[in-house]
Amino acid sequence: MEVRNLLSPLPSAEEAEVTERLLGANGVRLERIVSLGQASPEGFWYDQADDEWVLLLAGRARLTIAGEPDDRQLGPGDAIYLPGGCRHRVAWTDPAQPTVWLALFLDPGLDPLHEPSADAS
Amino acid sequence: MEVRNLLSPLPSAEEAEVTERLLGANGVRLERIVSLGQASPEGFWYDQADDEWVLLLAGRARLTIAGEPDDRQLGPGDAIYLPGGCRHRVAWTDPAQPTVWLALFLDPGLDPLHEPSADAS
Repeated sequence: MEVRNLLSPLPSAEEAEVTERLLGANGVRLERIVSLGQASPEGFWYDQADDEWVLLLAGRARLTIAGEPDDRQLGPGDAIYLPGGCRHRVAWTDPAQPTVWLALFLDPGLDPLHEPSADAS
Repeated sequence: MEVRNLLSPLPSAEEAEVTERLLGANGVRLERIVSLGQASPEGFWYDQADDEWVLLLAGRARLTIAGEPDDRQLGPGDAIYLPGGCRHRVAWTDPAQPTVWLALFLDPGLDPLHEPSADAS
């Protein structure tokens, strides 16, 4: 049981994104992804069966969701839930600083249920 | 599919901690907890069957793990995995600023496996 900081140190993502599995369980996968200017290849869409919940821990990114006219702009603390089958791609990550994603994938067999939260106040 | 920031706005935790379920699935629960100076009651220990992975998004906290001489000091980006049955308590959270926790609970039936990560470099 070690405390581990997810923001420092960071692996170098200069040559490629660095994905690391933080923990796993049956139907569950938690990953940290470090990007530095990478984006999804032109024309590529993530189209996965798993539900995905993603949280930006640091940096800046733009996410395209199929069928939406505008990209989603993401900064630190921003989270979004992408149901299985929701086609999406990373349009842009900041080339000037590392972007650190926390991504939780849930197998549809776990019957994921997104419970929209009440507004914080 | 809304982008939602987990750091702002924050609910007021002046009177009590504020726990909010962000998503759930069979055997899986993801929560945000906002603390402001709260700690576990004297003599109280969390002693749960679920495995828990917790990440501090903001603030500062001290965690006591049963049998350990020293508290764990947690700051932004710090994560720790607490296997089911690992007795622990929150010894302290910063009274001067909100502490924001992200907590992922996994039912032991999912056979959670913590995969210690390679050192980042």
